[in-house]
Amino acid sequence: MKKIKNGLSKIPGFKFSAVKAEIRYTDRLDFSLILSETPCNASGLFTKNKIFAAPVKLCRELINNPINAILINATNANACTGTEGYKNVITLTNTISEQLNLSKESVLMASTGIIGVQLPANKMLNSIPKLINNLSSDSGSLIAKAIMTTDTFPKESAYSFKTSLEKYYIGGIAKGSGMIAPDMATLLAFIITNAPIKKTDLDRIFKKSVQKSFNSITIDGDMSTNDTALILSPIKDDYLSNENDLLEFENTLNAVLTDLAKMLVKDGEGSTKCVEINISGARNENDAKNIAKSVAESLLVKTALFGEDPNWGRIACAAGYSNAEFNPDNLNINFNDIEVYKNGMPTDFDLKKVEKIMQLSEYKIFINIGSGKYTWKYLTTDISYDYVKINSEYSS
Amino acid sequence: MKKIKNGLSKIPGFKFSAVKAEIRYTDRLDFSLILSETPCNASGLFTKNKIFAAPVKLCRELINNPINAILINATNANACTGTEGYKNVITLTNTISEQLNLSKESVLMASTGIIGVQLPANKMLNSIPKLINNLSSDSGSLIAKAIMTTDTFPKESAYSFKTSLEKYYIGGIAKGSGMIAPDMATLLAFIITNAPIKKTDLDRIFKKSVQKSFNSITIDGDMSTNDTALILSPIKDDYLSNENDLLEFENTLNAVLTDLAKMLVKDGEGSTKCVEINISGARNENDAKNIAKSVAESLLVKTALFGEDPNWGRIACAAGYSNAEFNPDNLNINFNDIEVYKNGMPTDFDLKKVEKIMQLSEYKIFINIGSGKYTWKYLTTDISYDYVKINSEYSS
Repeated sequence: MKKIKNGLSKIPGFKFSAVKAEIRYTDRLDFSLILSETPCNASGLFTKNKIFAAPVKLCRELINNPINAILINATNANACTGTEGYKNVITLTNTISEQLNLSKESVLMASTGIIGVQLPANKMLNSIPKLINNLSSDSGSLIAKAIMTTDTFPKESAYSFKTSLEKYYIGGIAKGSGMIAPDMATLLAFIITNAPIKKTDLDRIFKKSVQKSFNSITIDGDMSTNDTALILSPIKDDYLSNENDLLEFENTLNAVLTDLAKMLVKDGEGSTKCVEINISGARNENDAKNIAKSVAESLLVKTALFGEDPNWGRIACAAGYSNAEFNPDNLNINFNDIEVYKNGMPTDFDLKKVEKIMQLSEYKIFINIGSGKYTWKYLTTDISYDYVKINSEYSS
Repeated sequence: MKKIKNGLSKIPGFKFSAVKAEIRYTDRLDFSLILSETPCNASGLFTKNKIFAAPVKLCRELINNPINAILINATNANACTGTEGYKNVITLTNTISEQLNLSKESVLMASTGIIGVQLPANKMLNSIPKLINNLSSDSGSLIAKAIMTTDTFPKESAYSFKTSLEKYYIGGIAKGSGMIAPDMATLLAFIITNAPIKKTDLDRIFKKSVQKSFNSITIDGDMSTNDTALILSPIKDDYLSNENDLLEFENTLNAVLTDLAKMLVKDGEGSTKCVEINISGARNENDAKNIAKSVAESLLVKTALFGEDPNWGRIACAAGYSNAEFNPDNLNINFNDIEVYKNGMPTDFDLKKVEKIMQLSEYKIFINIGSGKYTWKYLTTDISYDYVKINSEYSS
């Protein structure tokens, strides 16, 4: 595989558009469209929150259909908006499908922004002709900008990869930097590829890849009403079926999603560090994941990261209260290459050296629980004064 | 039942002592002893962390024996200290039992403070004669002070209650205000009563009461290596057995533990509010507890409480990502008497009125999920700049 510049725009067979519909603010891109030239297989992963937005409901209903387009808006989440909210989703996606001559059930939608407020449906309907008119294969980066809320930079990544048939491309964009309500900076991610992947393979591989990337990062541990990750791959007579080709697709997809996940963590609200929590020695993958999550989400660990304090006690503690099974006497903790905790007790480590590591903006904490051969990685951020500031100073 | 002044000192049949053993700092009470005149039934609840301190191991081993005394030290947690740590616990408790002529297996121990550092056993052994010499029935409040770490005030509570036999007393002390490592301000709580309660009743009632009090508060959601709650009740030929008497005991114990739990939350690190998260309408108690915990621990809810922002969206969201089953369309949220969210949508509430409520240092958030008749309450704090300050500025 090979990393290439730009995100979506490099992927053959797709067009893009973003306009200023004044959904909540004037003078910002807030309404965008991804259009495939041909119908696609789609896979989607959505928030597990019982309270989910109207567009998520639509996506869940349509995800197994051939999909031609994704309509996206920022600044309004269309969540907690009842039946009117869902009607607006239907009206908007139906209008798109009519004007583009597509099947009604081939247009998905995703939203992010304030919750509990109805979409300004008329303004948005009035913007649709312009949205369609602007469609261009060069405008992928505009969408990465148009979906931002509290993000400080647009997030896109693309790779090419070779198969036994030909060279293909995967590109993606994402947004989200914690969850600010009523501006809920939820996770939205849109991935497109010109590689033709059978629906069942697409579902399986996308789920696995999202587990390792978007589902293995944490900023504040809260799960929003709008989280949506979608991938589109063209429907063809012949799909990539050779095992090696599918593996190459999977590895390349992992690279795209991992790039995006890392950018999300680096852009975490008020965060100053991006730290990999690297678990090994677990009895099974679930145990490894549980420990990684427990350490990555611990407030005391996150404040220690901010304070650049090699607080092995908080890390051991958070590992200990996860549900994973292990013998505390086998626990080892490293900051990069420095061992600070061995066989259940602190080592006589060089404090100055560890503090130097913790001053880096990126480093790794290795936790080996010495109970098996399974591993998992999580990316986390610190919790700073700015996190509290960003999340407390909003006034309704 | 009737609230009475002071904590432990009012309980007949017990003596107390606290001394400055210079365990980590000079000139502070750090080593203390609770002694019962007669052997007691004891119940204990301990951290569920796989990494637990040496004194917790001892308590788990002895808790079903007749218990005469509890030895307590602050400023050193004796956690992550391996076999040497456990040997120190045995040496110290054995010395106490020898000098007081007690059975070796009748002395419990609890510790709080820095982890990964061995206890200064010799200093402590040298202090034992003075500790025993100082024993007095009036010194209960000294122990409430001697067990403090980052607490800003000592926490004690006592009540009397009437039974068909006579009047009895329950008193308790507690410490803990978040978990600061290496000074881990863990939860320690010691309750004594002169009411004779059969061991099986004591175990059952204490567990239930701790669930409703100490296990229903959250400051930062981290669980320490040393959490210990102990209760002692004298072994007698005749126990309180009348159903009404036991109920009165339970209600009085609930009052003591709830008082202590509230003080713990009010003293939460950097906290400015004490907010009750009051769940109703759940299908079962577990669902009610899950929602309460999810809302009480949400970083976004806690920063909104600090910012005095009536952010119903974050509350609904946190309820939605708990594991509880409910229909989002039945969800209602009140701040004290003001309904801000009804049947899954925000109401047209008076923002000024709700902001006034949120400026109070104590108020309630009522969440009715309209799916059943079960309820649960949780106490939580806000997350402030000071929380981040306290927990990040420590330097190893």
